[in-house]
Amino acid sequence: MFVQEDVSTAEVDRLEAVHAPLADGVRALVEATIQTCVDEDEVRAVRAEVDALVARLRARRTDGPAGVHYNAEGRTWSWGNAVVGERNAIAPPLRVVRDPDDSVHADVVLGVQYEGPPGMVHGGVGALLLDHVMGVAASARKRVTFTGTLTMRYVRATPLGPVRVEARIDREEGRKVFVVATLADPDGVTVEAEGVFIVPSWAV
Amino acid sequence: MFVQEDVSTAEVDRLEAVHAPLADGVRALVEATIQTCVDEDEVRAVRAEVDALVARLRARRTDGPAGVHYNAEGRTWSWGNAVVGERNAIAPPLRVVRDPDDSVHADVVLGVQYEGPPGMVHGGVGALLLDHVMGVAASARKRVTFTGTLTMRYVRATPLGPVRVEARIDREEGRKVFVVATLADPDGVTVEAEGVFIVPSWAV
Repeated sequence: MFVQEDVSTAEVDRLEAVHAPLADGVRALVEATIQTCVDEDEVRAVRAEVDALVARLRARRTDGPAGVHYNAEGRTWSWGNAVVGERNAIAPPLRVVRDPDDSVHADVVLGVQYEGPPGMVHGGVGALLLDHVMGVAASARKRVTFTGTLTMRYVRATPLGPVRVEARIDREEGRKVFVVATLADPDGVTVEAEGVFIVPSWAV
Repeated sequence: MFVQEDVSTAEVDRLEAVHAPLADGVRALVEATIQTCVDEDEVRAVRAEVDALVARLRARRTDGPAGVHYNAEGRTWSWGNAVVGERNAIAPPLRVVRDPDDSVHADVVLGVQYEGPPGMVHGGVGALLLDHVMGVAASARKRVTFTGTLTMRYVRATPLGPVRVEARIDREEGRKVFVVATLADPDGVTVEAEGVFIVPSWAV
């Protein structure tokens, strides 16, 4: 399911620009579904409209997950990914930036749909974002890695709102890549993480 | 934001039954947004309809996160929770069951929106579900806990589809509760987890 596609980068970008706004709209709908106080008949009426939209989108569709794709130019896309997928309304989506020293970071504003304790980011959502960004750091631009172990220390609760995830390779031993990372709010680090990522034998 | 509400359990159940179907519809829309192959004009048209539904739901709404609520009978509800929130389309939602020995488990089918590696559950989604279920185990029905540390060992990749999360208290030391847990697919354990959960001093 790592599938090479015969499609230009320009066309991939264009398709992404067509589909990403729909996912953005659905993200807003996720939030509105949590926050709405309209009356019960209106809730039921909107539900019926949502069902109708689902039917329209399903008129033509692929079965199964979106997978990971790439083209001959090295452009990759994983539009269904739970953290970075531009077509996945569950994903914030995170936009991971690689820094000149090969460390990576991502800034994102976490809305009400990522709540755990009242007003706070769900501890598991912190783990979700950290796992992903640490995996990107481990890949170091040039290889596939899988999560081996992941350890998180929760320094304090993370309020909903703007957060930053940072990760970098600490060291490597054979096919093991040791990554360190943090989740931070504007006041500083809230979660510290260490992970061991594995380079599969077919990739080295 | 742990808010006591003067509302009967029957009324809470009734409100949940009104709102949960809307979130279910939005869950289907999340999936359809990933899988659709309808033409580009139709994607844009559906986006416009989604925007209109968002506006209808926002006509009356609360600001901010949903929080955690309870009534005088001890019924609690956290409809916006990222893992179990009945009104949160990001949440599967997980339904956590407490067993007679106070261990807990949850069975859930993870759809395409939880993808990481092609066809596989995102490693961070495993962490998200484990964190939550371990927190429920730590609470042991009678107290609030926060995640202290969380360690996960990924035995192998977890395919999308049916999974089970199980967690139980291993031991306690003062305000620290040590919890062990697993994520499993129908063929067996895919992730092993250990966590230390903290009982805040205001709760003991």
